[in-house]
Amino acid sequence: LSGNSRTASEATGFGRIVAFSDGVMAVAITLLVLNLDVPDLPSSREGELDDKLFDLLPSLAAYALAFALIGRYWVIHHRFFESLRAFDVTLMGLNLMFLALIVLMPFSTELFDRYSDEPMAAAAFGATLGLAGLVHLAMVRHVLRKGFVHQHERRVSEPFGGAIALSLAVVFLLSVPAAFLSVWLAQLMWISAIVVRYPLRRLGR
Amino acid sequence: LSGNSRTASEATGFGRIVAFSDGVMAVAITLLVLNLDVPDLPSSREGELDDKLFDLLPSLAAYALAFALIGRYWVIHHRFFESLRAFDVTLMGLNLMFLALIVLMPFSTELFDRYSDEPMAAAAFGATLGLAGLVHLAMVRHVLRKGFVHQHERRVSEPFGGAIALSLAVVFLLSVPAAFLSVWLAQLMWISAIVVRYPLRRLGR
Amino acid sequence: LSGNSRTASEATGFGRIVAFSDGVMAVAITLLVLNLDVPDLPSSREGELDDKLFDLLPSLAAYALAFALIGRYWVIHHRFFESLRAFDVTLMGLNLMFLALIVLMPFSTELFDRYSDEPMAAAAFGATLGLAGLVHLAMVRHVLRKGFVHQHERRVSEPFGGAIALSLAVVFLLSVPAAFLSVWLAQLMWISAIVVRYPLRRLGR
Amino acid sequence: LSGNSRTASEATGFGRIVAFSDGVMAVAITLLVLNLDVPDLPSSREGELDDKLFDLLPSLAAYALAFALIGRYWVIHHRFFESLRAFDVTLMGLNLMFLALIVLMPFSTELFDRYSDEPMAAAAFGATLGLAGLVHLAMVRHVLRKGFVHQHERRVSEPFGGAIALSLAVVFLLSVPAAFLSVWLAQLMWISAIVVRYPLRRLGR
Repeated sequence: LSGNSRTASEATGFGRIVAFSDGVMAVAITLLVLNLDVPDLPSSREGELDDKLFDLLPSLAAYALAFALIGRYWVIHHRFFESLRAFDVTLMGLNLMFLALIVLMPFSTELFDRYSDEPMAAAAFGATLGLAGLVHLAMVRHVLRKGFVHQHERRVSEPFGGAIALSLAVVFLLSVPAAFLSVWLAQLMWISAIVVRYPLRRLGR
Repeated sequence: LSGNSRTASEATGFGRIVAFSDGVMAVAITLLVLNLDVPDLPSSREGELDDKLFDLLPSLAAYALAFALIGRYWVIHHRFFESLRAFDVTLMGLNLMFLALIVLMPFSTELFDRYSDEPMAAAAFGATLGLAGLVHLAMVRHVLRKGFVHQHERRVSEPFGGAIALSLAVVFLLSVPAAFLSVWLAQLMWISAIVVRYPLRRLGR
Repeated sequence: LSGNSRTASEATGFGRIVAFSDGVMAVAITLLVLNLDVPDLPSSREGELDDKLFDLLPSLAAYALAFALIGRYWVIHHRFFESLRAFDVTLMGLNLMFLALIVLMPFSTELFDRYSDEPMAAAAFGATLGLAGLVHLAMVRHVLRKGFVHQHERRVSEPFGGAIALSLAVVFLLSVPAAFLSVWLAQLMWISAIVVRYPLRRLGR
Repeated sequence: LSGNSRTASEATGFGRIVAFSDGVMAVAITLLVLNLDVPDLPSSREGELDDKLFDLLPSLAAYALAFALIGRYWVIHHRFFESLRAFDVTLMGLNLMFLALIVLMPFSTELFDRYSDEPMAAAAFGATLGLAGLVHLAMVRHVLRKGFVHQHERRVSEPFGGAIALSLAVVFLLSVPAAFLSVWLAQLMWISAIVVRYPLRRLGR
């Protein structure tokens, strides 16, 4: 270990990074609900509430998608930090960058939901998640290079680092140009990032 | 244990799922307060504040009800995770679905509070909680089938799984059609879910 | 110990109540900032920003007061739970009631700040904190009666229960009628609840 | 140790202060996203979304800056509390004051972003961070005087206290008068507080 790192036995310090990250992701995922606006009808037209709620379905779908994608990144973050036995200042900086991108998600989701036909809005949504994937990939590469990964986790983590973080970054970044071809194509790519089985099975091991 | 699960001794990983869930539920329960809007009166009519605050009482009641119901689900979630000695990816996915429904509660509550006479709004409120109950029931069934429950908890957990999760899901889902008969009936059913004694006593053992 | 309680050695369960409570109070105290609205000036009159910021000073003072009072309750809650070795369902229910009142604080603070001359607004602010104090007193009485307090803490906790929780409840509840005599008197009573030395010294032991 | 302090072995109590602080900072850093407003265009002019998003770039930059600065304070707070073996009521009070200033950041950031040419807005932004630095410095001085720092940390902590906390407080407080000379100069000073290497290297040991 380089002199620049801390041992995992200093569990308090380690636990706090994780707790802070969990807190930030928990708040970000919950703020997604603020995107769902209760329809405002004059009392004479309250009977039209059914129609208005029906109009909210795309917003609900966007909510569910964003919740699932932040949730997916949380699972990956969770698995990643579990495999570490040390950290350094660079990792803390990268982690803050990762969190800053996750925290943008309530904004990106509202933007995409409000302008669901505009390629630019879909591109912003994909770019937020793609950049988060890139930063996560940088974290994986950093800890492997520095040797911060538990020995018995290396066999899992190396393909893990190479597979999930890379595949998510690639899928989301490719969805940015794809959005200018078709917003639907971009959405399909995002959904594929939730349901694809290979990295999930890897996580479960 | 199937190879697909993790031992509870990997307490960090386990602790993080619980901490993330607690964080999400804590934020969701607190966002309920954003539903209470401070009345806006021109300075010439500030004397009417008493009346306006009086008009807020139904909103306060909806706040208290939603707080109690999220709180009840938190107690159940708490008791449920305490009884586990392992988890897998399926449980994490179900848990995220459960949280996504709890996070909808500030929206459902505001909708019901704004349109308290509309069956559709009450139905949405009941459906949110009913689906959360169903997903919780699926979690209980999953861990019992996989054998993730501490041996000495099985006797408690099996009726627990059969009783609370099922009864909450049933009461809330039945309140959806009931809302179209009478919004008051639906509300009575929700309140019964807070005060009913049987599952509470079970929890306290 | 009655059969209705759990030993503190089941530290996970205990830790979660505390973590959830901390989460709720942390979100509630942070939502206070949403009460501070950035002044909205047309670009031709941006030079008047200084005056507008000056007008925000009472809101800043209300923010500081509410932050200090929630902070004070958090310190008391912290000290209280530290002294416990067991809990039961009743304590969890009372704790949820306590949290529901703390979560109302961003609303009560905004109400008081918006209508700082109206006795009714000050009364609502005082009542929120007074009821929180009463519920806390009920928690203290409950755990002393049930014997949930560590033996070596009893000597501290019994006057603690009798002193802090009671004195805060009394001061805040008395500020409700006092607000109808003079809003300033009520404010003085709230400030006294922050700076009064006796219970602070007790806490520090 | 004075009789007024608690040993670090009472890890629960200590852990809660840290957890509460983390929670507050996690919520405050996440609320920054509420400052980013999705542009509101009539459907006939949705094609102008690109321009509107382009106009959001300064707001995004302000978001990134504020995120980095709160993140920096979190890293410092993290490192500071890790070095402690005891705490007292004074430290808890100072910590609450520190948190109250961090929680103001979403407001200060929105103010500065909305009035980026007004010296007064930049001064408020700098003053919020400068006061947070001063309170942190007071915390460092307090624990060194009381002897709450682990022996093997003293050599690190004493320059640490003298260097980081002081330098941040000085840079941010000097940016207040600097803002009245040039808002750009103030911004440069804030950015320097992120990238300056000396205290970072100290942290990394």
